[in-house]
Amino acid sequence: MKKIKVGVVGYGVIGQRLADGVFMQGDMELVGICDVGVTLAIRALKEKGMPYNLYLVDMSKKSDFDKYSIEISGSLEDLVKKCDVILDSTPAGVGAKNKLLYQKYNVKAIFQGGEDNSVADVFFHGYANYEKGLGKDFLKLTSCNTTGLIRAVDCLDRAYGLDKVAITIIRRVADPGDYHRGLTNALRVDKAPSHQALDLMTIMPHIDATGILVHTPVTHGHIITVIAKGKKKITKKMALEAFRAHPRIRMVSIDEGFLGNASLFRYARDLGNPRGDMYEIAIWEDTIVESGDEVMFAINIPQEAVTIPETIDGVRALMEMQSSSKEATETTNKYLHIGKWK
Amino acid sequence: MKKIKVGVVGYGVIGQRLADGVFMQGDMELVGICDVGVTLAIRALKEKGMPYNLYLVDMSKKSDFDKYSIEISGSLEDLVKKCDVILDSTPAGVGAKNKLLYQKYNVKAIFQGGEDNSVADVFFHGYANYEKGLGKDFLKLTSCNTTGLIRAVDCLDRAYGLDKVAITIIRRVADPGDYHRGLTNALRVDKAPSHQALDLMTIMPHIDATGILVHTPVTHGHIITVIAKGKKKITKKMALEAFRAHPRIRMVSIDEGFLGNASLFRYARDLGNPRGDMYEIAIWEDTIVESGDEVMFAINIPQEAVTIPETIDGVRALMEMQSSSKEATETTNKYLHIGKWK
Amino acid sequence: MKKIKVGVVGYGVIGQRLADGVFMQGDMELVGICDVGVTLAIRALKEKGMPYNLYLVDMSKKSDFDKYSIEISGSLEDLVKKCDVILDSTPAGVGAKNKLLYQKYNVKAIFQGGEDNSVADVFFHGYANYEKGLGKDFLKLTSCNTTGLIRAVDCLDRAYGLDKVAITIIRRVADPGDYHRGLTNALRVDKAPSHQALDLMTIMPHIDATGILVHTPVTHGHIITVIAKGKKKITKKMALEAFRAHPRIRMVSIDEGFLGNASLFRYARDLGNPRGDMYEIAIWEDTIVESGDEVMFAINIPQEAVTIPETIDGVRALMEMQSSSKEATETTNKYLHIGKWK
Amino acid sequence: MKKIKVGVVGYGVIGQRLADGVFMQGDMELVGICDVGVTLAIRALKEKGMPYNLYLVDMSKKSDFDKYSIEISGSLEDLVKKCDVILDSTPAGVGAKNKLLYQKYNVKAIFQGGEDNSVADVFFHGYANYEKGLGKDFLKLTSCNTTGLIRAVDCLDRAYGLDKVAITIIRRVADPGDYHRGLTNALRVDKAPSHQALDLMTIMPHIDATGILVHTPVTHGHIITVIAKGKKKITKKMALEAFRAHPRIRMVSIDEGFLGNASLFRYARDLGNPRGDMYEIAIWEDTIVESGDEVMFAINIPQEAVTIPETIDGVRALMEMQSSSKEATETTNKYLHIGKWK
Repeated sequence: MKKIKVGVVGYGVIGQRLADGVFMQGDMELVGICDVGVTLAIRALKEKGMPYNLYLVDMSKKSDFDKYSIEISGSLEDLVKKCDVILDSTPAGVGAKNKLLYQKYNVKAIFQGGEDNSVADVFFHGYANYEKGLGKDFLKLTSCNTTGLIRAVDCLDRAYGLDKVAITIIRRVADPGDYHRGLTNALRVDKAPSHQALDLMTIMPHIDATGILVHTPVTHGHIITVIAKGKKKITKKMALEAFRAHPRIRMVSIDEGFLGNASLFRYARDLGNPRGDMYEIAIWEDTIVESGDEVMFAINIPQEAVTIPETIDGVRALMEMQSSSKEATETTNKYLHIGKWK
Repeated sequence: MKKIKVGVVGYGVIGQRLADGVFMQGDMELVGICDVGVTLAIRALKEKGMPYNLYLVDMSKKSDFDKYSIEISGSLEDLVKKCDVILDSTPAGVGAKNKLLYQKYNVKAIFQGGEDNSVADVFFHGYANYEKGLGKDFLKLTSCNTTGLIRAVDCLDRAYGLDKVAITIIRRVADPGDYHRGLTNALRVDKAPSHQALDLMTIMPHIDATGILVHTPVTHGHIITVIAKGKKKITKKMALEAFRAHPRIRMVSIDEGFLGNASLFRYARDLGNPRGDMYEIAIWEDTIVESGDEVMFAINIPQEAVTIPETIDGVRALMEMQSSSKEATETTNKYLHIGKWK
Repeated sequence: MKKIKVGVVGYGVIGQRLADGVFMQGDMELVGICDVGVTLAIRALKEKGMPYNLYLVDMSKKSDFDKYSIEISGSLEDLVKKCDVILDSTPAGVGAKNKLLYQKYNVKAIFQGGEDNSVADVFFHGYANYEKGLGKDFLKLTSCNTTGLIRAVDCLDRAYGLDKVAITIIRRVADPGDYHRGLTNALRVDKAPSHQALDLMTIMPHIDATGILVHTPVTHGHIITVIAKGKKKITKKMALEAFRAHPRIRMVSIDEGFLGNASLFRYARDLGNPRGDMYEIAIWEDTIVESGDEVMFAINIPQEAVTIPETIDGVRALMEMQSSSKEATETTNKYLHIGKWK
Repeated sequence: MKKIKVGVVGYGVIGQRLADGVFMQGDMELVGICDVGVTLAIRALKEKGMPYNLYLVDMSKKSDFDKYSIEISGSLEDLVKKCDVILDSTPAGVGAKNKLLYQKYNVKAIFQGGEDNSVADVFFHGYANYEKGLGKDFLKLTSCNTTGLIRAVDCLDRAYGLDKVAITIIRRVADPGDYHRGLTNALRVDKAPSHQALDLMTIMPHIDATGILVHTPVTHGHIITVIAKGKKKITKKMALEAFRAHPRIRMVSIDEGFLGNASLFRYARDLGNPRGDMYEIAIWEDTIVESGDEVMFAINIPQEAVTIPETIDGVRALMEMQSSSKEATETTNKYLHIGKWK
C-alpha cells in the first residue's frame, strides 16, 4: 500500500508531537518538518541525530542553520509539493496565509485550534464528526480542551444520548518551558460562555452547552468539570461503563495515587513515553457523582499531546483512508499504542 | 444599652479578624483575646501598641511574653469568666476540649468550620438559618467556602426559589504567609461530592447540592462556579437584580479590571481595609450565563475574612440581640461598614 | 512654616504609595494626584471618599470619570502649576516626556527607576548620596531592589568601609494583583552583571559590585544575598551591630517565625499598615555568615513600598529642606513612623 | 568479562532513575528492584511490560501485587543475596536499617544524600574523591545540589586551583508530581551556612565554603550562583575553557533560548531522554562575570537525575572496576551517552 505523504509546518509544542505521531503511523510517511529558525526544538532534533528532514520557511535563514551544521532539505514550497497533506501548526494567523500555498499545489491541510474556523471546510473531531471530514480539503482541529472534552461528551452521547452540558474549565496557563506567558499567584476568569462550550455546540449541534473558564498558574494539564444531562438519567455506573470502554480515556482514581494533573504528568514520564507525553484524557472515578438526573465528573487534559490522535484521524478523513470514525480511530490508536494498557 | 462581652480564643488568621470585627461593633465589647505563645500575630499586636487585652492558655508560658514586655491580663479561664460569648478559632479539635470550660462557666460559644458539627447545637449561617440560632448555647459556623457560597445561593433562593445546585470549587491552597501547607505547579482533586455541597444541604435541606473541589497553588481567594436550577427559570437579569441588592455581595466585571481573585485582593488593600481584608464575596457579571432552565456564575471568596460577618451575626443570634436575620445582618453590616459603597 | 507642595503623577503601585507617604509628611502638602483613566486604584480612592484631589492627563476623558461621579480638579498642567515638586511614577518613558512640562513651569521632579538615568541631574539615594541632590531640579530614584540593597551596603560602608560586593537577586516577578506579567513554574536567569550591581556602582563609585539576577514566580518581596568585603574583616557581630542601628532595616530571625518573604508580607498586613505595606528592608540574623574576610547575608525587599522613604528624602534634597542625609532621613522616618518599633 | 550485579532498593524518584542508569551500563547487570507497595511508579513499570525483576520488602504484601498481575521475583533478602552492590534509595533513615542486611550478606552498598554520613565509609563524589571510594564497602553519595555544585567547583579547582567559594542556592521545592511537599507564592530562607557548603568542605577540605539557601515554588531544577576565588585570578575565558571541556557540564546561553531552569527541562524532554531527564548540569555562559580576583556564575541542577552518573561511578569505585576517576567517569559517561553532543 502506498503511504500517505505528510508534512508538518511549524515545529513548536504541537508540531513536534504531530511529527512524532505521524512518524509512528505505519500507513503514513513523514516527508519532513518546516520551521523558521534555529529554535531549541530544532537543536534537540539535531542532537538526536536529525531523524526528520528539515525544510525552511525562509531560505535566506539557511546560514543560521549552517552554523550548527544542520542540513536543510529545501524550502516550505519544496515540502508542500512533496506532500498529500500538510499539518499546519504555525502560530495563529499564519495558517491562513500558508493556505494559499497549499491551494496552489492542491495539497490538503489540517489547521490547529488557534486558526479561525473559516480557514477550513470542517471544524473537526475524530470521534464526533469524522464522517464530515471525508474527502474534504481543509480541516481545522478542535483546541486541546475541546478535543478532550468532546471525547468524554461524545462517549456519553453515543452510549445514552445527551441533551445538555455545563463545564468549568480549570485551565493550565502555560506549558512546561514557556516563558512568553505565565500567571503568578492569581486565578484569572474569562467572560462566559467559554469558547470551548461554543465550539462543542458547533461540532455537536444537538447538545446545549455553556461554561466558565478559570486560568490557573500551573503547567501540567487542564482539569474540566462536566455536568451532563442525559436524555434519560445517567447513573455513575452507566458513566463508568461507557468511559472504561473508550480507548482514549483512562479511568483513574485518587486512591491509586492519581491526586491531580501533576500525578498524570509524572506517570506519563515514568511510562517512558517520548517527551513524557500522554495522548489519553483521564477521568477520576471518585469524582463521578449524580445530581438529580445529571451526572458530574472531572477530566484531566494533557494539553501538549491530546490533539495528536484526532489530528491524525483527520489525515485519514481527508485522504479517505478509512470510511468510518471507528476504523479510523482504531488505526490511529494502534500505531500510537493507545489503549494497549486496557 | 449594656454591651455584649465577647472574647476571642485562638489568635490566628481567623481569630485576628474576629477580634478586629468585634472591636468595630458598637453593641459589643471585646474583652480580650487568648493564645498560646509569642506568635508573629502577637508581636504585630504589640508593635501596634497592644490595643487588645491578652490572655494565656497556659500561664506557665508567661515568661516568654515577659521577654518581649508583653502584658498578660490573665488565663483563658479568667477570660471565659468575663465573657457572654466566646468566639473559638483554635485549630480543629481544640474547640471541642475548650467547650467543657465554656460549659463550666455557662458561657456561650461559636466554633469555626474545622470543628466537628456535633460540638454545636446548630450549624449556622447568618442569612440562611439565623433564626435557628436564637438563644442557643453553641453554634458552629460554616467554613469560608460554604459561607460565601450560601450567601449567593440563599440570595437566589429567597428571591426565586431554588431546587438544585452543582458547584466546582477552585480552592486557594494556602493563605498569604502560610508555610505549613502549599502546592507547587499542581492541581489536586478531591473525592466528590465536596463537603461544601454536603454542608449546604445541612443548612438548606430543601436544596439538592453536589460538587467537585480542585485545589490550586494560589493564596488570594477561592473561586466557585455555581449552576443553580430555580423552581422557575432564572434569567441572567433576574440573577443580577437579586445579587445587586445583597449587601454582602459585590458585583464586579472583567471590563472594569477585575480579572480574577488577585484583582480583588489588591482592591481590598487599596481600599485601606485593615490587613487588606474584604468581607464581601464578589460575583463577576460577565460570567453569568443561562443554560436551559439553569443559571451559571462565578464567585470570589476572600477566605481570610469572609466568615467574620456571619460569625458576628451568630453572637447576635446566641444573645438574641436581634430577632431576625434581616435586623441582625443589617446591624453587623453597619458596624463593619459593609455595603457603604452601594 | 510653609509646606512644600507636592503632586504625584501616575497613580499605580508606586504612585499610590507615594501619595500616601507624602500625605503623612507634616512639612509637605499633597496637592493632588494625576492619572489617565478610571483604574481600580482610582475606584478604590473614590470608595474611600476621595481623600486626594484628582487631576487628569487628558481632560477629554473626563466623561469616563463622570459616570462614576468622580470629581476632577483639573488637568496635569493645572497640577504642575500648583506644585513645587512632582513625583513622577508614570510608566517607563512617559516621565521623560512629562519633564518638558515640568521644565516649562520651573517645577522640580523625581522620576522612578524605570526612567533613563539621563532624565535627571542625579541618580539618587536618600542615604548614599543625599548631599548630591541638594538644590537640584531633577532626580531619578534607584529601583526597588537597588534602593533596599544600598541601604544595607551603605550601612556597612559607613560603619566599616567596603571594597566589594557580589549579589544574587532572587526577584519576585510580579506584584500582588498583576495580570500583565507573570511566570509559571519557572526560574528565569538574566545576563550578568545585573543592572542593580551597576547602579550601585553609579551611586557608590568606590565599591566594586557585580551580581546575578534570577526571577522567581512569587509576588511577596525580593530576596538578595550579599557577599561584602570590608576594608578590614567584618565579623557577624559587627554586621549585626551596624544593621540593628539602622532605622530602615529590621533585623528578623527564622526562629521568631520569619520564614521567608511571605512572613514579612503577612506581618505588615497584621501591623495594620495601609495596603499592608512595609517601608523597611529586613535582614535575617541567622543568614549572616563570615567567609574568610567577607560577610554574607540575606535581605528581604518589600518591592511595593521600599522606595517611598528615599523618594521623600529626595523632595527634601531638591527643596533643601534639610542639609544632611541624617536630618532628612530622620524627618522622613518620623512622619512615616519608621523605626518606632525599635 | 563478568558483569557486576547491582540491585536497586527503593523505587522512587531516584531509584527509578538509578535502575534505568544501571540497565544502560554494559558492564553491569541490573538484578532487580525492590519496593514496598503498588505505587504509580510500579504501575508504570507494569504498563511498560515489566522490564525489571521486582522484589518485595515485605512478602506479606504480595497479594496487593497479585491484584494487578504483577509478578514478584522474591524478597529484599533474596535480592541482596544475588547482588554485588545495592543502590539504596529508600527514604532517609531506612538505609541505615537496611545496612545490617547488606552486612549480613557481605554486599556493598551506596546510600543517597538523605542518609546520615556515619552510614558510610566515605562521603563520595565521582570526580572529587573517586580514589577514596576504591574497594570500600559503603559509600554515601552527595545530595543533588552538592553533586552538581562539586562538578563545577572541582572542574575549576583541577584546572586552576581554588581557595574559597560562596554559594546562593535557589532551590526548587518539589519534583514534578510531588503532592507531599510544596510552597505557594513564598520564598523560604534557611539558616546559613547551608549544608551543601558544609558538605562541599567535607569532600574538598582544602576549599573554604559558605552559602545561603532559598527555597522557591518551582519544580524544574535548582539554580546555584557560585562566587569562586582561585589561587590566582580566574578570568571568564579561563572558566569557560574549563567548563566546556567537562563532559557532565553543558554550556548554554540565554541568547540561544535557554532562559531558565524550565527551558532545560523542556529541552531534555525534546531530546527524547527517558522520563525527560538530563544528567548534565548546565552553566549559563552569559552569567559568568569577574569580580576582582573572583569569578561568578550560575548553574542549573536537574535534581531528579543529576546524581545518577556519580552513583554509578560509586559502583565502579566499590568494585574497583576502574582505578581512577578519569577512567571510571569516562566509562559511566559512555554508557549513559553523556557528552555525545560535544
